[in-house]
Amino acid sequence: MTPGRVVFIGAGPGAADLITMRGAAWLARAEVVLHDALTDPALRDLAPQARWIDVGKRGYAHATGQAKIDALLIDEARRHAVVVRLKGGDPSLFGRLEEELQALAAAGIECEVIPGITAALAAAADARRPLTRRGSGRTLSLATAMTRAGPHELQRQADTEVFYMAGLRLAALAQELLRAGWTADTPASVVSRAGWPDSLASEHRLADLGDAATLHAGRPTIVVVGAGAAAAAVPAPQTGGLDAGQNGNAPSST
Amino acid sequence: MTPGRVVFIGAGPGAADLITMRGAAWLARAEVVLHDALTDPALRDLAPQARWIDVGKRGYAHATGQAKIDALLIDEARRHAVVVRLKGGDPSLFGRLEEELQALAAAGIECEVIPGITAALAAAADARRPLTRRGSGRTLSLATAMTRAGPHELQRQADTEVFYMAGLRLAALAQELLRAGWTADTPASVVSRAGWPDSLASEHRLADLGDAATLHAGRPTIVVVGAGAAAAAVPAPQTGGLDAGQNGNAPSST
Repeated sequence: MTPGRVVFIGAGPGAADLITMRGAAWLARAEVVLHDALTDPALRDLAPQARWIDVGKRGYAHATGQAKIDALLIDEARRHAVVVRLKGGDPSLFGRLEEELQALAAAGIECEVIPGITAALAAAADARRPLTRRGSGRTLSLATAMTRAGPHELQRQADTEVFYMAGLRLAALAQELLRAGWTADTPASVVSRAGWPDSLASEHRLADLGDAATLHAGRPTIVVVGAGAAAAAVPAPQTGGLDAGQNGNAPSST
Repeated sequence: MTPGRVVFIGAGPGAADLITMRGAAWLARAEVVLHDALTDPALRDLAPQARWIDVGKRGYAHATGQAKIDALLIDEARRHAVVVRLKGGDPSLFGRLEEELQALAAAGIECEVIPGITAALAAAADARRPLTRRGSGRTLSLATAMTRAGPHELQRQADTEVFYMAGLRLAALAQELLRAGWTADTPASVVSRAGWPDSLASEHRLADLGDAATLHAGRPTIVVVGAGAAAAAVPAPQTGGLDAGQNGNAPSST
Protein backbone atom coordinates (compact mmCIF):
# COMPACT_ATOMS: atom_id res chain seq x y z
CA MET A 1 0.00 0.00 0.00
CA THR A 2 0.98 3.62 -0.36
CA PRO A 3 2.80 4.83 2.74
CA GLY A 4 0.91 7.25 4.91
CA ARG A 5 2.16 10.53 6.14
CA VAL A 6 3.76 11.48 9.39
CA VAL A 7 2.45 14.66 10.97
CA PHE A 8 4.70 16.25 13.56
CA ILE A 9 2.58 18.25 15.99
CA GLY A 10 3.70 20.62 18.69
CA ALA A 11 1.54 19.91 21.73
CA GLY A 12 2.53 23.15 23.43
CA PRO A 13 4.04 23.47 26.89
CA GLY A 14 1.80 20.93 28.58
CA ALA A 15 -1.86 21.74 29.14
CA ALA A 16 -3.84 20.03 26.41
CA ASP A 17 -5.83 23.11 25.39
CA LEU A 18 -2.71 24.97 24.29
CA ILE A 19 -2.47 22.74 21.22
CA THR A 20 -3.59 24.43 18.00
CA MET A 21 -6.93 23.63 16.40
CA ARG A 22 -5.01 22.31 13.40
CA GLY A 23 -3.01 19.99 15.62
CA ALA A 24 -6.20 18.76 17.27
CA ALA A 25 -7.81 18.15 13.87
CA TRP A 26 -4.87 16.01 12.77
CA LEU A 27 -4.96 14.09 16.05
CA ALA A 28 -8.62 13.30 15.38
CA ARG A 29 -7.55 11.61 12.14
CA ALA A 30 -4.52 9.78 13.54
CA GLU A 31 -4.36 6.01 13.58
CA VAL A 32 -1.14 5.97 15.59
CA VAL A 33 0.37 8.59 17.90
CA LEU A 34 4.02 8.42 18.95
CA HIS A 35 4.58 10.70 21.89
CA ASP A 36 7.20 11.66 24.43
CA ALA A 37 6.37 11.99 28.11
CA LEU A 38 2.74 13.06 28.01
CA THR A 39 2.35 16.02 30.32
CA ASP A 40 -1.43 16.23 30.09
CA PRO A 41 -3.43 12.99 29.74
CA ALA A 42 -6.29 15.05 28.31
CA LEU A 43 -4.37 15.09 25.03
CA ARG A 44 -5.47 11.48 24.59
CA ASP A 45 -9.08 12.63 24.38
CA LEU A 46 -8.19 14.33 21.11
CA ALA A 47 -7.38 10.95 19.52
CA PRO A 48 -9.26 8.24 21.40
CA GLN A 49 -9.36 6.13 18.23
CA ALA A 50 -5.58 6.03 17.87
CA ARG A 51 -3.01 3.66 19.25
CA TRP A 52 -0.78 5.71 21.56
CA ILE A 53 2.87 4.70 21.80
CA ASP A 54 5.08 6.26 24.46
CA VAL A 55 8.56 6.65 22.98
CA GLY A 56 9.72 8.89 25.80
CA LYS A 57 9.97 6.07 28.28
CA ARG A 58 13.08 4.18 29.24
CA GLY A 59 14.30 1.99 26.46
CA TYR A 60 13.88 4.73 23.91
CA ALA A 61 15.66 7.40 25.90
CA HIS A 62 19.11 5.86 25.62
CA ALA A 63 21.72 6.55 22.98
CA THR A 64 20.15 4.12 20.54
CA GLY A 65 16.69 5.53 21.26
CA GLN A 66 16.52 7.89 18.33
CA ALA A 67 17.22 5.13 15.82
CA LYS A 68 14.43 3.06 17.38
CA ILE A 69 12.00 5.95 17.13
CA ASP A 70 12.98 6.58 13.51
CA ALA A 71 12.43 2.92 12.62
CA LEU A 72 9.10 2.83 14.40
CA LEU A 73 7.89 5.98 12.64
CA ILE A 74 8.79 4.51 9.26
CA ASP A 75 7.20 1.18 10.06
CA GLU A 76 3.94 2.72 11.26
CA ALA A 77 3.78 5.14 8.33
CA ARG A 78 4.02 2.20 5.92
CA ARG A 79 0.97 0.62 7.50
CA HIS A 80 -1.26 3.58 8.35
CA ALA A 81 -2.56 6.66 6.55
CA VAL A 82 -1.91 9.17 9.33
CA VAL A 83 0.76 8.78 11.96
CA VAL A 84 1.17 11.62 14.42
CA ARG A 85 4.47 12.37 16.12
CA LEU A 86 3.47 14.48 19.11
CA LYS A 87 6.20 16.61 20.64
CA GLY A 88 6.16 18.97 23.59
CA GLY A 89 6.32 22.70 22.88
CA ASP A 90 7.13 23.44 19.26
CA PRO A 91 8.75 20.72 17.16
CA SER A 92 11.19 23.10 15.44
CA LEU A 93 12.66 24.40 18.69
CA PHE A 94 14.81 22.19 20.92
CA GLY A 95 12.73 19.28 19.62
CA ARG A 96 15.29 17.12 17.80
CA LEU A 97 13.03 17.25 14.79
CA GLU A 98 15.87 17.15 12.28
CA GLU A 99 16.86 13.52 12.83
CA GLU A 100 13.31 12.26 12.41
CA LEU A 101 12.67 14.37 9.31
CA GLN A 102 15.88 13.04 7.78
CA ALA A 103 15.00 9.42 8.48
CA LEU A 104 11.51 9.80 7.01
CA ALA A 105 12.83 11.66 3.98
CA ALA A 106 15.33 8.89 3.33
CA ALA A 107 12.47 6.40 3.48
CA GLY A 108 10.39 8.46 1.04
CA ILE A 109 7.65 9.17 3.57
CA GLU A 110 5.75 12.41 3.36
CA CYS A 111 5.87 14.69 6.39
CA GLU A 112 4.03 17.69 7.66
CA VAL A 113 4.94 19.88 10.63
CA ILE A 114 2.31 21.69 12.71
CA PRO A 115 3.81 24.33 14.98
CA GLY A 116 3.11 24.51 18.70
CA ILE A 117 3.31 27.02 21.52
CA THR A 118 6.86 27.09 22.78
CA ALA A 119 7.32 27.42 26.54
CA ALA A 120 8.92 30.88 26.30
CA LEU A 121 5.70 32.32 24.91
CA ALA A 122 3.56 30.60 27.52
CA ALA A 123 5.90 31.87 30.25
CA ALA A 124 5.69 35.44 28.99
CA ALA A 125 1.91 35.17 28.84
CA ASP A 126 1.65 33.83 32.38
CA ALA A 127 4.00 36.46 33.80
CA ARG A 128 2.33 39.15 31.69
CA ARG A 129 5.80 40.30 30.70
CA PRO A 130 6.03 40.82 26.93
CA LEU A 131 9.31 39.48 25.55
CA THR A 132 9.79 42.48 23.31
CA ARG A 133 9.36 46.08 24.43
CA ARG A 134 9.17 49.28 22.51
CA GLY A 135 12.62 50.84 22.28
CA SER A 136 14.66 48.89 24.79
CA GLY A 137 13.62 45.31 24.05
CA ARG A 138 13.73 44.75 20.34
CA THR A 139 15.67 41.48 20.06
CA LEU A 140 15.10 38.14 21.75
CA SER A 141 17.28 35.06 22.07
CA LEU A 142 16.27 31.54 23.03
CA ALA A 143 18.65 28.90 24.36
CA THR A 144 18.71 26.10 26.86
CA ALA A 145 20.38 26.78 30.18
CA MET A 146 22.75 23.95 29.31
CA THR A 147 23.71 25.62 26.04
CA ARG A 148 24.75 28.73 27.86
CA ALA A 149 27.26 26.72 29.85
CA GLY A 150 29.61 26.53 26.87
CA PRO A 151 32.57 28.87 27.44
CA HIS A 152 32.36 30.24 23.90
CA GLU A 153 28.82 31.45 24.42
CA LEU A 154 29.46 33.88 27.20
CA GLN A 155 28.32 37.00 25.45
CA ARG A 156 25.12 38.95 25.64
CA GLN A 157 23.01 37.90 22.71
CA ALA A 158 19.94 40.06 22.74
CA ASP A 159 17.95 42.62 24.73
CA THR A 160 15.96 39.76 26.23
CA GLU A 161 17.32 36.25 26.70
CA VAL A 162 15.15 33.25 27.47
CA PHE A 163 16.54 30.02 28.88
CA TYR A 164 14.77 26.68 28.74
CA MET A 165 15.41 23.82 31.15
CA ALA A 166 16.85 26.25 33.66
CA GLY A 167 15.39 24.93 36.92
CA LEU A 168 18.36 22.86 38.04
CA ARG A 169 21.01 25.52 37.54
CA LEU A 170 19.56 28.92 38.30
CA ALA A 171 22.51 30.10 40.39
CA ALA A 172 25.08 28.89 37.86
CA LEU A 173 23.18 30.55 35.02
CA ALA A 174 23.14 33.83 36.93
CA GLN A 175 26.91 33.65 37.40
CA GLU A 176 27.45 33.00 33.71
CA LEU A 177 25.22 35.91 32.75
CA LEU A 178 27.04 38.24 35.14
CA ARG A 179 30.34 37.20 33.59
CA ALA A 180 28.83 37.88 30.17
CA GLY A 181 28.27 41.50 31.09
CA TRP A 182 24.75 41.65 32.47
CA THR A 183 24.57 43.74 35.64
CA ALA A 184 23.56 42.33 39.03
CA ASP A 185 20.32 44.32 39.04
CA THR A 186 19.16 43.02 35.65
CA PRO A 187 15.56 41.85 36.00
CA ALA A 188 14.93 38.12 35.71
CA SER A 189 11.50 36.52 35.52
CA VAL A 190 11.17 32.86 36.43
CA VAL A 191 8.10 30.89 35.36
CA SER A 192 7.46 27.22 36.03
CA ARG A 193 4.71 25.02 34.62
CA ALA A 194 3.96 27.76 32.09
CA GLY A 195 0.54 27.42 30.56
CA TRP A 196 -0.93 25.35 33.42
CA PRO A 197 -3.48 26.54 35.96
CA ASP A 198 -0.81 26.11 38.68
CA SER A 199 1.78 28.12 36.77
CA LEU A 200 4.11 30.06 39.08
CA ALA A 201 5.85 33.30 38.15
CA SER A 202 8.37 35.10 40.33
CA GLU A 203 10.46 38.23 39.84
CA HIS A 204 14.14 38.52 40.66
CA ARG A 205 17.37 40.31 39.89
CA LEU A 206 20.33 38.39 38.49
CA ALA A 207 22.08 38.81 41.84
CA ASP A 208 19.42 36.76 43.62
CA LEU A 209 18.22 34.49 40.81
CA GLY A 210 19.40 31.46 42.79
CA ASP A 211 16.72 32.22 45.37
CA ALA A 212 14.08 31.06 42.89
CA ALA A 213 15.32 27.47 43.06
CA THR A 214 13.22 26.42 46.03
CA LEU A 215 9.97 27.91 44.80
CA HIS A 216 10.19 26.28 41.38
CA ALA A 217 11.87 23.03 42.44
CA GLY A 218 10.88 19.98 40.42
CA ARG A 219 8.88 21.95 37.86
CA PRO A 220 9.78 22.70 34.21
CA THR A 221 11.23 26.19 34.44
CA ILE A 222 11.81 29.08 32.04
CA VAL A 223 14.03 32.05 32.88
CA VAL A 224 13.63 35.40 31.12
CA VAL A 225 16.47 37.88 31.54
CA GLY A 226 16.72 41.52 30.51
CA ALA A 227 14.22 43.92 29.00
CA GLY A 228 11.46 41.33 28.66
CA ALA A 229 11.63 40.47 32.36
CA ALA A 230 11.00 43.99 33.56
CA ALA A 231 7.76 44.88 35.26
CA ALA A 232 5.48 47.20 33.36
CA ALA A 233 5.74 50.85 34.34
CA VAL A 234 2.29 50.62 35.92
CA PRO A 235 2.20 47.39 37.94
CA ALA A 236 -0.90 45.29 37.57
CA PRO A 237 -2.89 45.20 40.81
CA GLN A 238 -2.76 41.42 40.93
CA THR A 239 1.03 41.28 40.53
CA GLY A 240 3.17 41.50 43.63
CA GLY A 241 6.66 40.28 44.34
CA LEU A 242 5.35 36.80 43.75
CA ASP A 243 2.50 36.17 41.39
CA ALA A 244 1.37 32.64 42.05
CA GLY A 245 -1.35 30.67 40.39
CA GLN A 246 -4.39 31.90 38.46
CA ASN A 247 -2.33 32.08 35.31
CA GLY A 248 -3.21 30.56 31.99
CA ASN A 249 -6.51 29.20 33.09
CA ALA A 250 -8.89 27.72 30.61
CA PRO A 251 -12.18 29.63 30.44
CA SER A 252 -14.05 26.76 32.05
CA SER A 253 -11.91 26.89 35.17
CA THR A 254 -12.25 30.58 35.95
CA MET B 1 -21.18 46.53 37.67
CA THR B 2 -17.91 44.69 38.22
CA PRO B 3 -15.57 45.25 35.31
CA GLY B 4 -14.97 42.27 33.08
CA ARG B 5 -11.68 40.89 32.05
CA VAL B 6 -9.66 41.47 28.94
CA VAL B 7 -8.19 38.35 27.37
CA PHE B 8 -5.30 38.92 24.98
CA ILE B 9 -5.18 36.08 22.48
CA GLY B 10 -2.52 35.29 19.94
CA ALA B 11 -4.31 34.34 16.73
CA GLY B 12 -1.18 32.83 15.21
CA PRO B 13 0.33 33.78 11.86
CA GLY B 14 -2.91 34.00 9.95
CA ALA B 15 -4.86 30.85 9.15
CA ALA B 16 -7.66 30.54 11.69
CA ASP B 17 -6.91 26.94 12.65
CA LEU B 18 -3.48 27.85 14.02
CA ILE B 19 -5.13 29.49 17.03
CA THR B 20 -4.93 27.42 20.21
CA MET B 21 -7.94 25.54 21.54
CA ARG B 22 -7.76 27.74 24.64
CA GLY B 23 -7.86 30.86 22.50
CA ALA B 24 -10.84 29.49 20.59
CA ALA B 25 -12.64 28.66 23.86
CA TRP B 26 -12.21 32.24 25.08
CA LEU B 27 -13.40 33.61 21.74
CA ALA B 28 -16.55 31.53 22.12
CA ARG B 29 -17.25 33.38 25.38
CA ALA B 30 -16.34 36.86 24.17
CA GLU B 31 -18.91 39.62 24.01
CA VAL B 32 -16.57 42.00 22.23
CA VAL B 33 -13.48 41.32 20.12
CA LEU B 34 -10.99 44.07 19.33
CA HIS B 35 -8.74 42.96 16.52
CA ASP B 36 -6.07 44.24 14.18
CA ALA B 37 -6.15 43.52 10.47
CA LEU B 38 -7.92 40.17 10.34
CA THR B 39 -5.90 37.90 8.12
CA ASP B 40 -8.41 35.06 8.07
CA PRO B 41 -12.14 35.89 8.17
CA ALA B 42 -12.77 32.34 9.45
CA LEU B 43 -11.63 33.60 12.87
CA ARG B 44 -15.01 35.33 13.11
CA ASP B 45 -16.72 31.95 13.11
CA LEU B 46 -15.12 31.29 16.48
CA ALA B 47 -17.06 34.18 18.01
CA PRO B 48 -20.17 34.80 15.94
CA GLN B 49 -21.98 36.11 19.02
CA ALA B 50 -19.44 38.86 19.65
CA ARG B 51 -19.25 42.40 18.38
CA TRP B 52 -16.06 42.62 16.31
CA ILE B 53 -14.23 45.94 16.29
CA ASP B 54 -11.40 46.51 13.84
CA VAL B 55 -8.79 48.67 15.57
CA GLY B 56 -6.16 48.00 12.93
CA LYS B 57 -7.79 50.22 10.37
CA ARG B 58 -6.91 53.78 9.56
CA GLY B 59 -7.79 56.12 12.35
CA TYR B 60 -6.34 53.81 14.95
CA ALA B 61 -3.06 53.22 13.18
CA HIS B 62 -1.81 56.78 13.60
CA ALA B 63 0.32 58.11 16.42
CA THR B 64 -2.69 58.61 18.67
CA GLY B 65 -4.04 55.16 17.81
CA GLN B 66 -2.69 53.31 20.82
CA ALA B 67 -4.35 55.71 23.27
CA LYS B 68 -7.65 55.21 21.45
CA ILE B 69 -7.31 51.45 21.62
CA ASP B 70 -6.45 51.59 25.33
CA ALA B 71 -9.50 53.75 26.06
CA LEU B 72 -11.76 51.48 24.04
CA LEU B 73 -10.48 48.36 25.83
CA ILE B 74 -11.15 49.94 29.21
CA ASP B 75 -14.56 51.15 28.19
CA GLU B 76 -15.64 47.78 26.81
CA ALA B 77 -14.25 45.89 29.81
CA ARG B 78 -16.34 48.05 32.12
CA ARG B 79 -19.49 47.03 30.28
CA HIS B 80 -18.85 43.37 29.38
CA ALA B 81 -17.70 40.24 31.17
CA VAL B 82 -15.25 39.03 28.52
CA VAL B 83 -13.49 41.30 26.07
CA VAL B 84 -10.99 39.67 23.73
CA ARG B 85 -8.06 41.55 22.29
CA LEU B 86 -7.03 39.45 19.32
CA LYS B 87 -3.50 39.95 18.05
CA GLY B 88 -1.63 38.36 15.17
CA GLY B 89 1.08 35.83 16.01
CA ASP B 90 1.91 35.78 19.70
CA PRO B 91 0.95 38.79 21.83
CA SER B 92 4.23 38.80 23.79
CA LEU B 93 6.40 39.04 20.70
CA PHE B 94 6.48 42.19 18.57
CA GLY B 95 2.87 42.71 19.63
CA ARG B 96 3.00 45.98 21.56
CA LEU B 97 1.28 44.20 24.40
CA GLU B 98 3.01 46.22 27.09
CA GLU B 99 1.17 49.47 26.50
CA GLU B 100 -2.23 47.82 26.62
CA LEU B 101 -1.41 45.79 29.75
CA GLN B 102 -0.24 48.98 31.44
CA ALA B 103 -3.38 50.90 30.57
CA LEU B 104 -5.64 48.11 31.81
CA ALA B 105 -3.62 47.66 35.00
CA ALA B 106 -3.88 51.36 35.73
CA ALA B 107 -7.65 51.08 35.29
CA GLY B 108 -7.80 48.08 37.63
CA ILE B 109 -9.02 45.70 34.95
CA GLU B 110 -8.04 42.06 35.12
CA CYS B 111 -6.12 40.63 32.18
CA GLU B 112 -5.16 37.25 30.86
CA VAL B 113 -2.76 36.46 28.03
CA ILE B 114 -3.15 33.38 25.83
CA PRO B 115 -0.08 32.68 23.75
CA GLY B 116 -0.16 32.17 19.99
CA ILE B 117 1.98 30.63 17.26
CA THR B 118 4.57 33.17 16.27
CA ALA B 119 5.41 33.36 12.57
CA ALA B 120 8.97 32.08 13.03
CA LEU B 121 7.66 28.72 14.24
CA ALA B 122 5.13 28.49 11.42
CA ALA B 123 7.86 29.34 8.91
CA ALA B 124 10.17 26.65 10.26
CA ALA B 125 7.33 24.14 10.14
CA ASP B 126 6.45 25.01 6.54
CA ALA B 127 10.06 24.87 5.37
CA ARG B 128 10.67 21.73 7.44
CA ARG B 129 13.83 23.39 8.71
CA PRO B 130 14.09 23.08 12.51
CA LEU B 131 15.33 26.31 14.07
CA THR B 132 17.64 24.49 16.44
CA ARG B 133 20.00 21.71 15.40
CA ARG B 134 22.00 19.27 17.40
CA GLY B 135 25.51 20.61 17.91
CA SER B 136 25.72 23.52 15.51
CA GLY B 137 22.39 25.25 16.06
CA ARG B 138 21.78 25.63 19.74
CA THR B 139 20.80 29.29 20.06
CA LEU B 140 18.14 31.28 18.25
CA SER B 141 17.48 34.99 17.99
CA LEU B 142 14.34 36.76 16.84
CA ALA B 143 14.21 40.35 15.61
CA THR B 144 12.42 42.43 13.05
CA ALA B 145 14.32 43.23 9.87
CA MET B 146 13.88 46.88 10.82
CA THR B 147 15.53 46.30 14.19
CA ARG B 148 18.60 44.92 12.55
CA ALA B 149 19.08 48.19 10.67
CA GLY B 150 20.37 49.91 13.80
CA PRO B 151 24.13 50.42 13.48
CA HIS B 152 24.74 49.19 17.03
CA GLU B 153 23.17 45.83 16.31
CA LEU B 154 25.55 44.65 13.65
CA GLN B 155 26.85 41.60 15.44
CA ARG B 156 25.98 37.96 15.10
CA GLN B 157 23.56 37.10 17.86
CA ALA B 158 22.95 33.39 17.65
CA ASP B 159 23.54 30.25 15.61
CA THR B 160 20.21 30.88 13.90
CA GLU B 161 18.69 34.32 13.41
CA VAL B 162 15.09 34.90 12.39
CA PHE B 163 13.86 38.19 10.98
CA TYR B 164 10.23 39.25 10.89
CA MET B 165 8.79 41.80 8.45
CA ALA B 166 11.71 41.21 6.13
CA GLY B 167 10.00 41.18 2.75
CA LEU B 168 10.66 44.77 1.77
CA ARG B 169 14.36 44.80 2.54
CA LEU B 170 15.85 41.42 1.78
CA ALA B 171 18.89 42.76 -0.05
CA ALA B 172 19.63 45.35 2.63
CA LEU B 173 19.29 42.75 5.37
CA ALA B 174 21.75 40.48 3.57
CA GLN B 175 24.27 43.32 3.35
CA GLU B 176 23.93 44.04 7.06
CA LEU B 177 24.39 40.38 7.93
CA LEU B 178 27.49 40.13 5.76
CA ARG B 179 28.93 43.17 7.51
CA ALA B 180 28.12 41.48 10.83
CA GLY B 181 30.40 38.60 9.96
CA TRP B 182 28.13 36.02 8.34
CA THR B 183 29.72 34.53 5.24
CA ALA B 184 28.26 34.90 1.74
CA ASP B 185 27.42 31.20 1.56
CA THR B 186 25.44 31.18 4.84
CA PRO B 187 22.12 29.45 4.18
CA ALA B 188 19.00 31.59 4.31
CA SER B 189 15.46 30.25 4.20
CA VAL B 190 12.69 32.60 3.16
CA VAL B 191 9.07 31.75 3.95
CA SER B 192 6.05 33.88 3.12
CA ARG B 193 2.46 33.42 4.25
CA ALA B 194 3.71 30.89 6.80
CA GLY B 195 0.96 28.64 8.08
CA TRP B 196 -1.32 29.12 5.07
CA PRO B 197 -2.05 26.54 2.38
CA ASP B 198 -0.32 28.83 -0.14
CA SER B 199 2.79 29.22 2.00
CA LEU B 200 5.96 29.58 -0.07
CA ALA B 201 9.41 28.54 1.07
CA SER B 202 12.62 29.16 -0.88
CA GLU B 203 16.28 28.45 -0.14
CA HIS B 204 19.09 30.90 -0.67
CA ARG B 205 22.56 31.94 0.39
CA LEU B 206 23.14 35.34 1.93
CA ALA B 207 24.92 36.39 -1.27
CA ASP B 208 21.72 35.98 -3.30
CA LEU B 209 19.06 36.63 -0.65
CA GLY B 210 17.87 39.65 -2.61
CA ASP B 211 16.73 37.29 -5.38
CA ALA B 212 13.89 36.15 -3.12
CA ALA B 213 12.21 39.54 -3.32
CA THR B 214 10.20 38.87 -6.47
CA LEU B 215 8.93 35.44 -5.43
CA HIS B 216 7.65 36.64 -2.05
CA ALA B 217 6.58 40.14 -3.10
CA GLY B 218 3.57 41.52 -1.26
CA ARG B 219 3.40 38.64 1.23
CA PRO B 220 4.30 38.63 4.95
CA THR B 221 7.82 37.25 4.94
CA ILE B 222 10.11 35.58 7.46
CA VAL B 223 13.84 35.12 6.88
CA VAL B 224 15.82 32.43 8.70
CA VAL B 225 19.61 32.72 8.57
CA GLY B 226 22.30 30.32 9.74
CA ALA B 227 22.16 26.81 11.12
CA GLY B 228 18.36 26.65 11.18
CA ALA B 229 18.14 27.49 7.48
CA ALA B 230 20.31 24.59 6.35
CA ALA B 231 18.82 21.72 4.44
CA ALA B 232 18.73 18.40 6.23
CA ALA B 233 21.59 16.06 5.38
CA VAL B 234 19.14 13.80 3.55
CA PRO B 235 16.94 16.03 1.41
CA ALA B 236 13.26 15.28 1.49
CA PRO B 237 12.00 14.04 -1.90
CA GLN B 238 9.39 16.79 -2.05
CA THR B 239 11.89 19.57 -1.36
CA GLY B 240 13.73 21.08 -4.28
CA GLY B 241 15.34 24.44 -4.80
CA LEU B 242 11.89 25.91 -4.46
CA ASP B 243 9.31 24.23 -2.31
CA ALA B 244 6.05 25.92 -3.15
CA GLY B 245 2.64 25.27 -1.75
CA GLN B 246 1.32 22.18 -0.01
CA ASN B 247 2.65 23.43 3.29
CA GLY B 248 0.71 23.79 6.48
CA ASN B 249 -2.48 22.39 5.09
CA ALA B 250 -5.38 21.64 7.33
CA PRO B 251 -6.33 17.98 7.35
CA SER B 252 -9.56 18.69 5.53
CA SER B 253 -7.71 20.14 2.56
CA THR B 254 -5.32 17.29 1.93
